[in-house]
Amino acid sequence: MKVAVFRKEHFNAAHRLHNPRWNDEQNLKVFGKCSNPHFHGHNYDLIVRVAGEPDPVTGYVMDMKVLSDLIKEHVTDKFDHKNLNLDTDEFKNLNPTAENISITIYNILRQHIDPKFDLKITLYETERNFVEYPVN
Amino acid sequence: MKVAVFRKEHFNAAHRLHNPRWNDEQNLKVFGKCSNPHFHGHNYDLIVRVAGEPDPVTGYVMDMKVLSDLIKEHVTDKFDHKNLNLDTDEFKNLNPTAENISITIYNILRQHIDPKFDLKITLYETERNFVEYPVN
Amino acid sequence: MKVAVFRKEHFNAAHRLHNPRWNDEQNLKVFGKCSNPHFHGHNYDLIVRVAGEPDPVTGYVMDMKVLSDLIKEHVTDKFDHKNLNLDTDEFKNLNPTAENISITIYNILRQHIDPKFDLKITLYETERNFVEYPVN
Amino acid sequence: MKVAVFRKEHFNAAHRLHNPRWNDEQNLKVFGKCSNPHFHGHNYDLIVRVAGEPDPVTGYVMDMKVLSDLIKEHVTDKFDHKNLNLDTDEFKNLNPTAENISITIYNILRQHIDPKFDLKITLYETERNFVEYPVN
Amino acid sequence: MKVAVFRKEHFNAAHRLHNPRWNDEQNLKVFGKCSNPHFHGHNYDLIVRVAGEPDPVTGYVMDMKVLSDLIKEHVTDKFDHKNLNLDTDEFKNLNPTAENISITIYNILRQHIDPKFDLKITLYETERNFVEYPVN
Amino acid sequence: MKVAVFRKEHFNAAHRLHNPRWNDEQNLKVFGKCSNPHFHGHNYDLIVRVAGEPDPVTGYVMDMKVLSDLIKEHVTDKFDHKNLNLDTDEFKNLNPTAENISITIYNILRQHIDPKFDLKITLYETERNFVEYPVN
Repeated sequence: MKVAVFRKEHFNAAHRLHNPRWNDEQNLKVFGKCSNPHFHGHNYDLIVRVAGEPDPVTGYVMDMKVLSDLIKEHVTDKFDHKNLNLDTDEFKNLNPTAENISITIYNILRQHIDPKFDLKITLYETERNFVEYPVN
Repeated sequence: MKVAVFRKEHFNAAHRLHNPRWNDEQNLKVFGKCSNPHFHGHNYDLIVRVAGEPDPVTGYVMDMKVLSDLIKEHVTDKFDHKNLNLDTDEFKNLNPTAENISITIYNILRQHIDPKFDLKITLYETERNFVEYPVN
Repeated sequence: MKVAVFRKEHFNAAHRLHNPRWNDEQNLKVFGKCSNPHFHGHNYDLIVRVAGEPDPVTGYVMDMKVLSDLIKEHVTDKFDHKNLNLDTDEFKNLNPTAENISITIYNILRQHIDPKFDLKITLYETERNFVEYPVN
Repeated sequence: MKVAVFRKEHFNAAHRLHNPRWNDEQNLKVFGKCSNPHFHGHNYDLIVRVAGEPDPVTGYVMDMKVLSDLIKEHVTDKFDHKNLNLDTDEFKNLNPTAENISITIYNILRQHIDPKFDLKITLYETERNFVEYPVN
Repeated sequence: MKVAVFRKEHFNAAHRLHNPRWNDEQNLKVFGKCSNPHFHGHNYDLIVRVAGEPDPVTGYVMDMKVLSDLIKEHVTDKFDHKNLNLDTDEFKNLNPTAENISITIYNILRQHIDPKFDLKITLYETERNFVEYPVN
Repeated sequence: MKVAVFRKEHFNAAHRLHNPRWNDEQNLKVFGKCSNPHFHGHNYDLIVRVAGEPDPVTGYVMDMKVLSDLIKEHVTDKFDHKNLNLDTDEFKNLNPTAENISITIYNILRQHIDPKFDLKITLYETERNFVEYPVN
């Protein structure tokens, strides 16, 4: 009798897409305007999904306040108002595509969410471009 | 060749979270401001998902007008502008967390939706807190 | 060269509409299901608009962090997860219609916003019902 | 390590629901006001989901610009500002229910998306009525 | 001490833009794909704003249920699931641009709203194209 | 008989808030995390409002396609996927607060919109922080 609970948070960050082994021309060809060397940015909307059986005493799968605090402590305080490429360890050597950001956030949160729960990340880079990880 | 159809409805209700076997202090510790004895409230957005094979004659999985009417008759007319704890049979002895409300709505609608169809409930308590039931 | 800046906040509260000088029947006739004696509730979205000339040094009309903190301290901490009729001084003797809530919030914030700025309140009771105060 | 990427597009179209083997009365009985002989219309929001393993060199499952161009070329340029019943080959003999439109769009795009990727379509006919295809 | 109250409703309709005194080529040149002879359509979101002094007894500018019923009776029942050009008297000889639809709805509702109240119409043809009438 | 027409566009950009005559400490004190030297970014939503009398022949205040093209040519092509501080002439010496960005966009578009029309800019930096210029 599993229920999934979702918490939506957000952060604003700068990034650029590029492969450090390529020159500017090659990066421009593959990543287009997303490879602008001076960066651009987004309001990222993040939805964290935790699925499991509700506790019969509280009726909660997980206290949403606790989940919100976990996301804040481990994800949004780390990425909000930052340059993902320059200001974070996670994306110093990893291209900050929405795909890679969602995998990174999953890997961070997975360590702080009880293993009995399933975890899934949805990340909106814009209202029209978004990703989900993991998928079956 | 299954298609899922979704219908979004809404209702506004008051509730409080509490465990009747605990005193106010214990309830406050577990449920925080959500246990306010005088209640608080929400605009609940409800999405009902019905999945099955479209009828070859109509092209419908299920007539959305029929689905909307079912939700209205059995769910929103029952909960809209009500105090879930005091005015409904369902939550007299069940803590009205989003998890329990979604399970309750599923159990109500399951009796009125053809068993050949899968049924799933998504319930938004706020734009940032929502739940889904059942999940695999 | 005036610019208006807007900050959106929210709070969740229970309320009922009723006139204490009327009996239940009269209240039901005028306020319908909104007069349910056991209350119902809403997710209120609040937009505060402050208009004035930007400071030439900062480029700000008003620091949105300061505005957000003012709203939190004087409005949302007071009303969030409360029963407006029972838990607040403001609505003990004032019917908590969206109109009266917006006037009340305006009167509270007006004392904390520099008089050189225009102030306006937009309050969403639901996505489909909302109010604005003051209007010319 | 699969990630799903989503791209949201839109088109505006007219349609009517009807079964050509039925007379107007029968169509009205089954499809209600949706069978209006002079058509009505919608702003369709279309979400295309492509799931697969990100390319280790780019960090992309699929370039969203490429996906957006594919949708534009094969779907939205074909249906936007059209009468689905009269102006398109796809719905000359197929009732343009949301279910059938989503299946049709899936079948069109499936030919242009690498078979190694999973494909799913979500189509919003209105904010309150939407469909998903395929579902497991 | 005026307050404005807003009610949001919606209707779905087909239309085409064209000037009957022009031939198809001229209409195509001016109205582009919006002049498709077989029509296209939209989900129209309609916001009606009524401004006035709240009644001291009820705390209402106007009962939103009454306003919603007025809009339904005089506007959305008339236009919903219709072809504006063919099925309505209002647009038989008036080009159904968003501008003209908003003026038409204003003129209809103005007859049913107490003259002591200001009235304003906002009409969304799409999420990205909308109009307001009247403006000062 | 004026009508206002609105067109919504968007662009994604990086920026930082800072006063070049202040040192980092002073900038941090005034602009907080918004002064991060490595920049952060936003999805900016831009709404352009043009008010005037509809043309009696077309029923348009202004062709929305023309307005959209003007915004694209003069605003979003210039700012999209750019670093406002480093990549644009407009904000080399002007702090890119939402207030200043809206004034700048107004000044750019004012040159391309017929003087007989009123012009107003609404700029969303986030869903919760937005500005409007000019205001009376």
